[in-house]
Amino acid sequence: MYLVGRKPQVVQRSIKRLLFGKPLHNRELSHEKLPNWKALPIFSSDALSSIAYGPEQVILALTAASALAYGFVPYVSLGILLLLAVVTLSYVQVARANPGGGGSYSVARGNLGELPALIAAGSLVADYCLTVAVSISSGTDALVSAFPQLNPIRLGIDLFVLFGILMVINLRGVRESANAFVYPTYAFIFGIAALIATGIYQTLTGIQPVLPAASLEKQWTAGMIFVLLRAFSNGCSSMTGIEAISNGVPNFNEPSAENARITTYSMSLVLGTMFAGISFLMMHFHILPMENVTGLSQIAEATLGRNWAYYYIQFTTMIILYLAANTAYNGLPPLLSILATDGYMPRYLSARGDRLAFTNGILFLTFAAAFLIVVYHGNTEHLISLYAIGVFLSFTIAQTGMVIHWRKEGGAGAKSRAFVNGIGAVITGIVVVVIVISKFVHGAWMILVFIPAAIFVFKKVKTHYLAVSDQLGVNWNEVGQPGPERKHIVIVPIAGVNRVVQNTIDYAKVLGGEVHAVYISTDPEQTGKVLERWNRWKPSIDLKIIESPYRTIIAPLVSYIDRIDKKNSPDDFITVLIPEFETKKWWHRLLHNQTGWMLRTILLLYRDVVVTVVPFKLVK
Amino acid sequence: MYLVGRKPQVVQRSIKRLLFGKPLHNRELSHEKLPNWKALPIFSSDALSSIAYGPEQVILALTAASALAYGFVPYVSLGILLLLAVVTLSYVQVARANPGGGGSYSVARGNLGELPALIAAGSLVADYCLTVAVSISSGTDALVSAFPQLNPIRLGIDLFVLFGILMVINLRGVRESANAFVYPTYAFIFGIAALIATGIYQTLTGIQPVLPAASLEKQWTAGMIFVLLRAFSNGCSSMTGIEAISNGVPNFNEPSAENARITTYSMSLVLGTMFAGISFLMMHFHILPMENVTGLSQIAEATLGRNWAYYYIQFTTMIILYLAANTAYNGLPPLLSILATDGYMPRYLSARGDRLAFTNGILFLTFAAAFLIVVYHGNTEHLISLYAIGVFLSFTIAQTGMVIHWRKEGGAGAKSRAFVNGIGAVITGIVVVVIVISKFVHGAWMILVFIPAAIFVFKKVKTHYLAVSDQLGVNWNEVGQPGPERKHIVIVPIAGVNRVVQNTIDYAKVLGGEVHAVYISTDPEQTGKVLERWNRWKPSIDLKIIESPYRTIIAPLVSYIDRIDKKNSPDDFITVLIPEFETKKWWHRLLHNQTGWMLRTILLLYRDVVVTVVPFKLVK
Repeated sequence: MYLVGRKPQVVQRSIKRLLFGKPLHNRELSHEKLPNWKALPIFSSDALSSIAYGPEQVILALTAASALAYGFVPYVSLGILLLLAVVTLSYVQVARANPGGGGSYSVARGNLGELPALIAAGSLVADYCLTVAVSISSGTDALVSAFPQLNPIRLGIDLFVLFGILMVINLRGVRESANAFVYPTYAFIFGIAALIATGIYQTLTGIQPVLPAASLEKQWTAGMIFVLLRAFSNGCSSMTGIEAISNGVPNFNEPSAENARITTYSMSLVLGTMFAGISFLMMHFHILPMENVTGLSQIAEATLGRNWAYYYIQFTTMIILYLAANTAYNGLPPLLSILATDGYMPRYLSARGDRLAFTNGILFLTFAAAFLIVVYHGNTEHLISLYAIGVFLSFTIAQTGMVIHWRKEGGAGAKSRAFVNGIGAVITGIVVVVIVISKFVHGAWMILVFIPAAIFVFKKVKTHYLAVSDQLGVNWNEVGQPGPERKHIVIVPIAGVNRVVQNTIDYAKVLGGEVHAVYISTDPEQTGKVLERWNRWKPSIDLKIIESPYRTIIAPLVSYIDRIDKKNSPDDFITVLIPEFETKKWWHRLLHNQTGWMLRTILLLYRDVVVTVVPFKLVK
Repeated sequence: MYLVGRKPQVVQRSIKRLLFGKPLHNRELSHEKLPNWKALPIFSSDALSSIAYGPEQVILALTAASALAYGFVPYVSLGILLLLAVVTLSYVQVARANPGGGGSYSVARGNLGELPALIAAGSLVADYCLTVAVSISSGTDALVSAFPQLNPIRLGIDLFVLFGILMVINLRGVRESANAFVYPTYAFIFGIAALIATGIYQTLTGIQPVLPAASLEKQWTAGMIFVLLRAFSNGCSSMTGIEAISNGVPNFNEPSAENARITTYSMSLVLGTMFAGISFLMMHFHILPMENVTGLSQIAEATLGRNWAYYYIQFTTMIILYLAANTAYNGLPPLLSILATDGYMPRYLSARGDRLAFTNGILFLTFAAAFLIVVYHGNTEHLISLYAIGVFLSFTIAQTGMVIHWRKEGGAGAKSRAFVNGIGAVITGIVVVVIVISKFVHGAWMILVFIPAAIFVFKKVKTHYLAVSDQLGVNWNEVGQPGPERKHIVIVPIAGVNRVVQNTIDYAKVLGGEVHAVYISTDPEQTGKVLERWNRWKPSIDLKIIESPYRTIIAPLVSYIDRIDKKNSPDDFITVLIPEFETKKWWHRLLHNQTGWMLRTILLLYRDVVVTVVPFKLVK
């Protein structure tokens, strides 16, 4: 019997259904599995899209120091491609060994112990949030490059994409995210492939002028090593997202580990090819960083001219970057769910909502990314500098964990597998050190503050859950033995004799305990009237009068309850029944004193007192 | 047994004591009576202080239209003095007839009926709030005249005086207000008397040059009548506060009516004399309105020079104006208390706080005045134009009521008394019409909107209280007859088997009703575990399992409770016991889901369901 609120509730539910779809039954969970051709775009949009900013970041670092460093671009790019190969091989093994998903965190938890696992978890949490922020900002950069007039509303676009599109789509559940995102990713791959092919064709046929050798000059100085390392660190941002597949193994069709492995190879091949092609074209056209126009936009314009093909490239780039943000939505909520199940994050992060998605994790990621976007005003460059360190830290931990894993497992091929992961661990570990050193003042320090802070939180949360389960755990030894006799004392403070009080006293009587009615007397005349009415009513309960010459109500009541509490055993239950009426209109509430509410609030500080408001609804 | 909050509570209490003093016992109420020499400053500072702005307002109105109207000052002033005499005579009779206090409202309520009484009440509420705002602003004007460098922080000074001084002093109670305010009022009277005497002496001895006749020229035109009426209306603001004594009769020493009468005469004599003297000096020095320098400051500077005597005048003027604001604190809270007792305002306005002051009324007045000061930026002139109409409306109603009163009472002298009040009613009524016409666009319309709005609120409040008392009234015919048998059903939703649930089930058992334990199953595996633990525990209550394949918890619970509710008689009690634990630290709360809280909130929309949280405090 709803008295209020039925209609708004129905309306609210309809809006919810329209945005997020009808609830999904538990048995629909197993259907949310992906074939490889769908899994590739969903899990790799993060990695693939990073060619929209990765090669440009390399050039940014090289040109920032001196124009004479430009010639080093191919060497740095080659280094990054080699690293990509190592990381890919290593991650194929992670996917193979962990059909349960969870990536670096699970690997470390299973093989290295708590601390490395939590370091990995902290890194991953930071990176997923940064992925969303960086990808959305870069997507909007692609849009603004094509339509400079949108520059003033850049932040608004970022937040609309985040809340209006990504959050909504993900709250609808995994399968539908896939359907919405598959084709645009292939459209992007096609576009970039065509762009690279056209550019190379033009170069080979001499349609585009070959650059003078002078502009590719490189000058070696002692300080240059630092510049190169920074360029390399920047370029490593292209590798973010490779781990996404190994974290999402359970979403693949059976055999899921095998399918995940194949998809990792495909993704890495596409990524490497595109990275090499774009880097080549950038160098070939001698692209320099420009404000509000991305490097990719400059290449597209130089190669294709400003026509429909150019807009196709910009548009698909924008879309894939927004999809890259979506990769994090497929990665972080399951990770948070695993962390929550292990007790390191609030439990409710592991609950699936009525569309089977991890609702709370999706909201967590959305708000964290919104915070980063707003704080950094959607400035891609600053966000990217926070980025690579966490990624490579979690890479290193995962690879190290895998070495231990293969050793434990043993058997045929275990040694060679351990060797591959060992190489991966060493190389990614070196990359971490390189990034920390070369980018420390550019934001790497923030990640170095964040990760320990995150570990502190994880541990605090775990401690709390352990303490709770310790205190709430049933003492099975006592079960079946007769417990102490627990008396029940019911205290009813009254302010007069009326129907609310009568109703409350009636209720007190059915509670089956010792009932005490109490009246606080602030005015002898009034008290006389109340007593007279009480005796006329004769509820067969004595009314205790407490004098309060200073006219306070709460304090004498509380000390009365205190006295009763002390007289009885700590095992006894004390219930305070507060007679209150609910007014029909909200403003009527302002016309009555708030003593009941205040009493309830104060009594909630007690341990053993149950406070019950016996409601009495006014109908006019 | 306080577990939390004892220390902060003690600290808070100490601060309260320091600011507001120790609680006063009920029996100390009768001691809060005032001798005449103390009552005069307390109740008349409003009226007396108005000479700081009243005469200046007359000149402002006359010079605004044309410099040629200056010569009319003496005529307008004379008119105001005559009106003062009439109002004084009339109010002496009000005080005589109403030893209970309450002024115009009580008079009208007793003699004219509800509507005139509420008109008077509305006018008085508006005027008291305006008094505080106008007086504080004018007091700060006096200060700023002497120290122009304070001009930028004018608003801050206003609000400090309001909250930091007036509110605090009044919350300490009536007697202490008196003690704080008696001497400054006499100092002001002395200063103004000395100023006037010095000015007249200088004029008579020719030390100050007599003004050339030309500057006092007056030119009669048809439009001038309107200018004169507006000047007269402005000057009437000097009469605000005369009613304060008749509203405060109960605060006088016995015989209180007689003492109030004497005090009214004294106040009126002092006020008239000062008004006449200041008006004379203003005209004599040909004072013109200046920004940020009051007329009184100009006179004091011209007469005394800018020396200690000048600062004495400014300082005492400032003080008495702040005291005038205090007059309203002695007037409005008791009026609100009477209105509350009659059911037109929230009941708690009639309760005396632990210092015997009407705490809620004092807070009401403080916040209303703060609102006016902030909205009008402490601009005296605009506030004054809202002022006089309400005052004279309540004068008219009070006088008319008195005519009826004397007629009803009859006896010797009743006829002549009715005549005096009749004259008063007619004249103040004419003044109301004059002010409405001449000041309509200058703000009088706001009061004409406010008063009907206030009456609407008064009536709505009354209607609500009548409806409540109708619904809560005990049906004495039914008392003593056996009521229907009221069953008790206890529903305990559980989320697992742990100590909190055990404690709640123990409590449910002592409640003496039919106990239903319910578990919402979202996951068959989990449900199996819970059932197994329940059966191992064997609480001798069956556990009802409700399937929820869409993983919602609240909705299936609510519909289960709905079904139970419908199966039973509306007279039966249904109690929903929610097992919940209180975490030790506030942030621990964030680590647990809020299902209990949401369930409670939703169930509060039910009429017949008692919702009880059985608390279980975690200690670590």
